Amino acid sequence: MSSADHAELALTLEVASTPKPGNVDRHRDHDDLRFEQFLAGAVGSRPGLELAAGDAGLGDAFERAVRGMSQQSGGNTQFGCLLLLVPLVRAAATDRLSPDGLRDVTGATTVDDAAAFYRAFEYVDVAVDDPPDEAPDLDVRRGADAVPALRDRGLTLADVMEMSADHDANAAEWTGGFGRVFDAADRVLDDDGPVTDRLARAFLDLLAERPDTLVAIDHGTDRARAVSREADAVRGDLDAAETLADRFLDEGINPGTTADLTAATAFVALERGVPV
Amino acid sequence: MSSADHAELALTLEVASTPKPGNVDRHRDHDDLRFEQFLAGAVGSRPGLELAAGDAGLGDAFERAVRGMSQQSGGNTQFGCLLLLVPLVRAAATDRLSPDGLRDVTGATTVDDAAAFYRAFEYVDVAVDDPPDEAPDLDVRRGADAVPALRDRGLTLADVMEMSADHDANAAEWTGGFGRVFDAADRVLDDDGPVTDRLARAFLDLLAERPDTLVAIDHGTDRARAVSREADAVRGDLDAAETLADRFLDEGINPGTTADLTAATAFVALERGVPV
Repeated sequence: MSSADHAELALTLEVASTPKPGNVDRHRDHDDLRFEQFLAGAVGSRPGLELAAGDAGLGDAFERAVRGMSQQSGGNTQFGCLLLLVPLVRAAATDRLSPDGLRDVTGATTVDDAAAFYRAFEYVDVAVDDPPDEAPDLDVRRGADAVPALRDRGLTLADVMEMSADHDANAAEWTGGFGRVFDAADRVLDDDGPVTDRLARAFLDLLAERPDTLVAIDHGTDRARAVSREADAVRGDLDAAETLADRFLDEGINPGTTADLTAATAFVALERGVPV
Repeated sequence: MSSADHAELALTLEVASTPKPGNVDRHRDHDDLRFEQFLAGAVGSRPGLELAAGDAGLGDAFERAVRGMSQQSGGNTQFGCLLLLVPLVRAAATDRLSPDGLRDVTGATTVDDAAAFYRAFEYVDVAVDDPPDEAPDLDVRRGADAVPALRDRGLTLADVMEMSADHDANAAEWTGGFGRVFDAADRVLDDDGPVTDRLARAFLDLLAERPDTLVAIDHGTDRARAVSREADAVRGDLDAAETLADRFLDEGINPGTTADLTAATAFVALERGVPV
């Protein structure tokens, strides 16, 4: 399979893996977001993933992927997943799928890539934190309207990610050579059983090891820390995690950034030969 | 989305639709065949589906799709689905997605297409009936070894399907302008609710209206007729169908040909705008 194939399959395996407490998975829908909308999001993102595997600008590939993903009625299914997958696909397609390789890929991004990233926010509503006080003009929710400010400041996509790295786990991967993703993929490869069980355990590990930044945006940092402690308590125990999954669903706790990291983990594991 | 996108999505929606009594679905695995292997089969079949949307030979497109589908460890996930989807994709991509259009597409197949169809049996084990007494040399289980016999007799892929139409529901669609598939897609479009619920109801209707030919191969025609009567009894009632699904799973009843028809139905419904 090609890297674009693996990325698309990773998107479907992420949502198929269960239980992933608080997220849509094979056994749970949200009221406003259904399992099959993630399947459509995965298939729709394909042209963007193919651009990522080629030599298009990384931002253009991401924007195209998000545009395709948004062709279903659930809204934002996989924006964060794609933000991680696009550089990973580029690295894999150019034989650089390692932390150093990812630093090369992200370090080579341009202001045009940043502009395309901002444009991608026009396609779906994405839950984000407020912009830094000193840069209200860079609020991603402004979409394309923020592009002149980006150009004035000469910010590349890597620079934009750097600005969010302290409060967004996906941005932190961009600036950190995807260290958490590579570590999680190693654990998946060392694990056994069906790949979807391995990914569900990887999700619990990721959530236990660091608070989910989407939960922090939605419910505050204290609650996000508590959620991670609850994940830690059921780590490695998918039966116990079932109960937690039902409760998080009732309470509206959605660790979506950890799901993004899980999709990226699935991609690296597939590239490295995890059996399906 | 392109026709290849719709075909790939149709493969994933088919397996996501639940309950589909006796088949792998969102809530049920078989001991030797898991949900995520269908996801991998769908992604893997993509290059073949793209050939079907282009101008490759229909047999070559099918063989490529099956080869890609087989890149997972579950074995035969979607051979029959692809046999239906390949001509449907060709018809959609050439603006002929109608019974007459499908008759044109299948009627234009050649001996080379038949040879590629036979070669596709080399990639996975497919449950099939015995060949006709007068043509043991045309047993599909011979794979490429049967190709000289095909060429001697000058049989096109449409001719091969004609020979099986009385005992294989997929072959019957090939020779009948995909009439059952188009009818089922009309019902899906007229139905309401999530697309996966509509497809589960379509599956029950298809199973109720005619015995499943894979069940007939595995368990005999009497049992296949009884299975259809049981499906008829729960038609339109997905809660009642849950109980039937658990029982068929226990009894090893696998109406796989009806699942193939359901995937084809999903494709036509997607092409005609069913919402996801």
